Amino acid sequence: MEIEFLGTGAGSPAKSRNVTSIALKLLEEINEVWLFDVGEGTQHQILKTSIRPRKVTRIFITHLHGDHLFGLPGFLSSRSFQGAQQMGTLIIYGPKGVKDFVQLSLRVSQTKLTYKIKYIEIEKTGLLVNEAQFRVYVDRLDHRIECFGYRVVENDYAGELQVERLKEEHIPAGPIYGRLKAGEKVELPDGRVIDGQDYLGEKKRGRIVTILGDTRQAPSILGLAQNADVLIHESTFGRDEAQLAFNYHHSTNMQAAKIAKQAEVKQLFLTHISARYVGVKALQLEKDAHKVFENTKLANDFDTYMVPFSHK
Amino acid sequence: MEIEFLGTGAGSPAKSRNVTSIALKLLEEINEVWLFDVGEGTQHQILKTSIRPRKVTRIFITHLHGDHLFGLPGFLSSRSFQGAQQMGTLIIYGPKGVKDFVQLSLRVSQTKLTYKIKYIEIEKTGLLVNEAQFRVYVDRLDHRIECFGYRVVENDYAGELQVERLKEEHIPAGPIYGRLKAGEKVELPDGRVIDGQDYLGEKKRGRIVTILGDTRQAPSILGLAQNADVLIHESTFGRDEAQLAFNYHHSTNMQAAKIAKQAEVKQLFLTHISARYVGVKALQLEKDAHKVFENTKLANDFDTYMVPFSHK
Ligand SMILES: [Zn+2]
Ligand SMILES: [Zn+2]
Repeated sequence: MEIEFLGTGAGSPAKSRNVTSIALKLLEEINEVWLFDVGEGTQHQILKTSIRPRKVTRIFITHLHGDHLFGLPGFLSSRSFQGAQQMGTLIIYGPKGVKDFVQLSLRVSQTKLTYKIKYIEIEKTGLLVNEAQFRVYVDRLDHRIECFGYRVVENDYAGELQVERLKEEHIPAGPIYGRLKAGEKVELPDGRVIDGQDYLGEKKRGRIVTILGDTRQAPSILGLAQNADVLIHESTFGRDEAQLAFNYHHSTNMQAAKIAKQAEVKQLFLTHISARYVGVKALQLEKDAHKVFENTKLANDFDTYMVPFSHK
Repeated sequence: MEIEFLGTGAGSPAKSRNVTSIALKLLEEINEVWLFDVGEGTQHQILKTSIRPRKVTRIFITHLHGDHLFGLPGFLSSRSFQGAQQMGTLIIYGPKGVKDFVQLSLRVSQTKLTYKIKYIEIEKTGLLVNEAQFRVYVDRLDHRIECFGYRVVENDYAGELQVERLKEEHIPAGPIYGRLKAGEKVELPDGRVIDGQDYLGEKKRGRIVTILGDTRQAPSILGLAQNADVLIHESTFGRDEAQLAFNYHHSTNMQAAKIAKQAEVKQLFLTHISARYVGVKALQLEKDAHKVFENTKLANDFDTYMVPFSHK
């Protein structure tokens, strides 16, 4: 599970930051990549990475502002040129309107895709995706326009079966091992009854990644971010600009840090950085937030972050 | 009058070529820039040039394929952030459908522009723009989808009034000079009658720039390109691929060169270069075409060309 920032700027592309897109690479886990927002030029950014568009199976749009959306038709079209018919259905999640926009874009350009798209326009908050290994929860944020935050939750991994110990105790390999691994109690041919639970290593807690769209501070953020391994939070404004942030329906770096602390997340990334903040001034956003929440990083285009497992 | 290639690739963005956009910079003439096609990422390309989006007053779309269109909503939005209310109406010319696409994109993203847009969806060919210094003619090409070519014609410049000669002949400066400059016959206070035409330098012929959308070879190309100072012609396929070009509704480099020769243009640019042609292979497109028409150049992103005046 790796995060790759494809665009970390606010509003319009700038020389050093493209508009928003974030890739959640689940290649080791399920051989898929999920995209969060697709600002204009996202496909250009992807060209500079190792991400293969055909691996992108789900796209989550936080809100329909152009800097989060206008790269979607182009990405979908170019994906179609790559590797023909075997691609499964791609699912697009987002606010009402995303389907109209994509469908009109494809229709007006007479683009025939080589794969199917399923649109899920979000009407109710809560559990949005419920797959074998991952769930995604969604909640509403507070922006000028309907806007969502996503909480991706990986299922816990059962502990590994301690095969060496079993062998030492002369428990013969075979179908029994499968039942023990599932945590069952098993009667052996010699009459012993053993409990799989006693032969399982430590469980690994699944990881949680929370990715928010543009937002003012709102109660829903805490629920989305609680105990996340990674929180990706916008930081359109700086330390002394809380009033501006409020007026424009955005957040400051300090607000992001505060909520990260309150939600006890492990790592905070600040993104959606305004073009007013470049070089040292951008780093200052990180420094200031750092005083409130230590594990704060300023996200830059093409930054990657392997999400570590935390000990239970 | 300068041409700047903002994107010279075909279909999808590649590392070295963005999708299509061409700027016709008329800054010295009328302090405006005209864009021809706006593929995704055009605003990103513009960031790397000296072009100021607020100077863009007219946008001509050749056809609605995504690689010529999908950068339009983003460009329009970002232009809006620059320099507020004083901007006049921006005019967008293109095939039917361009208005729906732009309007839905702006509506879904709740983008409120600081300037007005006038849409001119082309229904009939011929004279499309008729301004004081420039006219634009449009004709249909032969592509999979409705597609246009544009011929931009600059008005001729009257010859300069030869003031030194007038002074030598003791013709006093004053309102008379204005009439002479307009080519009138004037009676002087001393009774002499002189003809302004005799005191005008050589006329300068206005320049002609022809910019085509994607197309198979078609009779309309000759009319659009005849005697142009610059012809910008697609070259999606190479020397031995005429059949492929036909099948996909595109042209080869050799076809572009042939029509340039037949139309007696002064300079040919090959653009819309497939990602299959990189480095030496792309240059080969130019070399091969060169044998048919000497003044052939392969266009690359950010190439510029000052269109010279030709002697009458
Ligand atoms: Zn935004
Ligand atoms: Zn094209």
